[in-house]
Amino acid sequence: MAEKVTPRSEDYSRWYTDVVQMAELADYAPVKGCMVIRPYGYALWENIQGGLDRRFKETGHQNAYFPLFIPQSFLQKEAEHVEGFAPELAVVTHGGGEKLEEPLIVRPTSETIINTMMAKWIRSYRDLPMLLNQWCNVVRWELRTRLFLRTTEFLWQEGHTAHATADEAEAEALRMLGVYADFAINDAAIPVIQGRKSDTERFAGAVRSYTIEAMMGDKRALQSGTSHFLGQNFAKAFGTQYLDKNNELQHVWQTSWGMSTRMVGAIVMVHGDDKGLILPPVLAPIQVVIVPIWRKDAEKDAIMGAIADLKTRLAGGRLRVDERDDLSPGFKFNDWEMRGVPLRIEIGPRDLAANQVTLARRDTGEKSPVPVAELAARVPVILKDIQANLLCRATEFRDANTFGAKDWDELVDAVGKGFARAWWCGSVECETKIKEETKASTRCIPLDQPGGTGKCAVCGGEAKEQAIFARAY
Amino acid sequence: MAEKVTPRSEDYSRWYTDVVQMAELADYAPVKGCMVIRPYGYALWENIQGGLDRRFKETGHQNAYFPLFIPQSFLQKEAEHVEGFAPELAVVTHGGGEKLEEPLIVRPTSETIINTMMAKWIRSYRDLPMLLNQWCNVVRWELRTRLFLRTTEFLWQEGHTAHATADEAEAEALRMLGVYADFAINDAAIPVIQGRKSDTERFAGAVRSYTIEAMMGDKRALQSGTSHFLGQNFAKAFGTQYLDKNNELQHVWQTSWGMSTRMVGAIVMVHGDDKGLILPPVLAPIQVVIVPIWRKDAEKDAIMGAIADLKTRLAGGRLRVDERDDLSPGFKFNDWEMRGVPLRIEIGPRDLAANQVTLARRDTGEKSPVPVAELAARVPVILKDIQANLLCRATEFRDANTFGAKDWDELVDAVGKGFARAWWCGSVECETKIKEETKASTRCIPLDQPGGTGKCAVCGGEAKEQAIFARAY
Repeated sequence: MAEKVTPRSEDYSRWYTDVVQMAELADYAPVKGCMVIRPYGYALWENIQGGLDRRFKETGHQNAYFPLFIPQSFLQKEAEHVEGFAPELAVVTHGGGEKLEEPLIVRPTSETIINTMMAKWIRSYRDLPMLLNQWCNVVRWELRTRLFLRTTEFLWQEGHTAHATADEAEAEALRMLGVYADFAINDAAIPVIQGRKSDTERFAGAVRSYTIEAMMGDKRALQSGTSHFLGQNFAKAFGTQYLDKNNELQHVWQTSWGMSTRMVGAIVMVHGDDKGLILPPVLAPIQVVIVPIWRKDAEKDAIMGAIADLKTRLAGGRLRVDERDDLSPGFKFNDWEMRGVPLRIEIGPRDLAANQVTLARRDTGEKSPVPVAELAARVPVILKDIQANLLCRATEFRDANTFGAKDWDELVDAVGKGFARAWWCGSVECETKIKEETKASTRCIPLDQPGGTGKCAVCGGEAKEQAIFARAY
Repeated sequence: MAEKVTPRSEDYSRWYTDVVQMAELADYAPVKGCMVIRPYGYALWENIQGGLDRRFKETGHQNAYFPLFIPQSFLQKEAEHVEGFAPELAVVTHGGGEKLEEPLIVRPTSETIINTMMAKWIRSYRDLPMLLNQWCNVVRWELRTRLFLRTTEFLWQEGHTAHATADEAEAEALRMLGVYADFAINDAAIPVIQGRKSDTERFAGAVRSYTIEAMMGDKRALQSGTSHFLGQNFAKAFGTQYLDKNNELQHVWQTSWGMSTRMVGAIVMVHGDDKGLILPPVLAPIQVVIVPIWRKDAEKDAIMGAIADLKTRLAGGRLRVDERDDLSPGFKFNDWEMRGVPLRIEIGPRDLAANQVTLARRDTGEKSPVPVAELAARVPVILKDIQANLLCRATEFRDANTFGAKDWDELVDAVGKGFARAWWCGSVECETKIKEETKASTRCIPLDQPGGTGKCAVCGGEAKEQAIFARAY
């Protein structure tokens, strides 16, 4: 912790990498494009998993596990799918000392292998809907990688469902988008825009893709979770059929949806500051850290005795006592601020004498004395307040940096400053022009539309929908 | 469920495969040697994970995540390690459409990649002990595979720790062996023998390997978890060093330990019977299933109303109500017996009239009426009793089929009937003779020894320890 992070204003990208490494969330692996998730980062991921997994189970989904390896021929069955993923594949050609007859692909996503099994398991309408999810690692060969945001291997969950009707599948895709938004907003304190991807940004093999988009601290967008209505594309390629109530064979309608360790990067970039991480209490591996302060060894016993009492009072929360002997309180303060612990409790001889502690909030830096007797009641309230404040702050930041754009000049100006919200005619030409001339991409067509029609900010033609354009990770 | 499982007495191996598939624990994948873990099997695995993960955290371990891919050169740094694993490796030779300069190995275990990182993270004695664990998939190319017991890809956890002294590392290896034994006995209701592996059965790269060995329903042994004292073998190969209190560089002392989805297979084989699975209540995804019984539709409403009340009374347990309309109660009974649900509650018009339900235990088949008012108090007690009975039954079975063997004839006889416990001089010659002539292998040298010395059951030479010999999976 002797080193300091690069200030955000100086170099945002270096700030991000500094924080991820100095807070010990992750480290570079000695394997090209891969990372190591360190215990503190993994504990955060476990809390993300917990929040999502609970929601998946509440909405009737079951976890399962499918093979890491996919025969090359499976991937080739859905034309758009293989075209989209071909440049990113890692290929196993040898196993057990011999060359394989058919190369195996390390899964970049599992639609193909899961359809192979669904085609076997699904017989009749009684087997539907089939609502599966899998927690696993996936591999997509990436040339330019960044810790958590884009790595060759990453951890994620992928939901895969099969339904009897198109409406039901489309509703499922939207429901899971809503689950992601609920998680992002209420657990990660990240305001997100729910929307539809444009055709050029669609998942390879999907009919429609949905996304939640968030604004990072540098005003760029991060796609933070996606949900796809797959139609019958994979069902037809793999023969995933069911007997309906009239005893006729029908192809199922499907969805898939995923959220990954990228969410850790989003949390870093949405909430962090020049002192390091700021973690939302709902997800923080350590919610409260107690730092004892003493000068003379004689003071230590009394302080540690008081801390034993505090631990009892705060039982049930995610609490850590920093008992390290060889470090100064000031060093410890900086250390836990770097790690983004939401609330710090300081207790020294003067606090002890007054039967109080000093609370320090990571989000505001505010310090206040609190009587020990009130602590058990106050801490949960303050943690809730921090959670709410982080969401509020991030929402204000995003809204202050989102600009309506009526024409080309306003659009260029807006994407230079943050998010642009503009009417768009829907043509690939206008979308390409924006991308080529401003480096901003179509983030999404928000589900929440003003209604009516407008003029496309690029070509002036008739537009039925507004879209969000921004530079993105 | 129209099909029946092959009786154990007819063909134990087919019985196993039938139960795993018909109880929907797992299915064969269309990828050679791989399996798909279905939702019911995965829910059981999640409960296994929960029981282990809690114990790991209670003993101070932290979870982390290391890359799936290991550069080939890393694996070659520890000579014994690469020799042991070379025949089982899956190799990625192409990524992103290009041939890789150095092939990547899909991890068969992670000692090498983790040492690369530990060598970077560990600086001084203050960083020790470093107690890490990882939940992940690993790949070992297998020619003859069996669902859960031996598959090319499997899920496991692998603990990796680094310590300042040999004693501390050895104590850690034994402590984690104890954690595995505690989990096996108290959660999985599987009695296990804790012991040391013979040198020929040691993990490739370890100084000493420890194991827990369990007896399956066909009296064969299954290695159910292993823990290794690695000495400084990997530390020296990777330069994993720390500065001690005298400011001198020392190599760390290490351990690794793992338990896998194989444990699911152990649970099937230790407890199951000809009706299917029998799951220990601590790990069962569904502990109690309620099966409503009615003949006329008019009865249904009253029954379902009573069930709503039962659900409130039993809230907190892992409860399922079988509301399927199109299946008979008899079919449902068989179905839940196949899936090994520990306790079934039947409720029909006659029960309703008497304000009672009928309880049916999966372990004993025993049925008994219980007044509804007593249900909330009785169910947890019965579940505990089932858990205890399963452990007791398995222990009695193992002990009844474990035989002391004083000489070669008794040894041959014993390994033909179950486990042999015999004095062994420790020579590879005697061990090889047993393996070649009886197909039994040295399962372990139990930690629990009678003391004194004896005569080797094979050569008659002096023996300081007893060992367990058995045919194994």
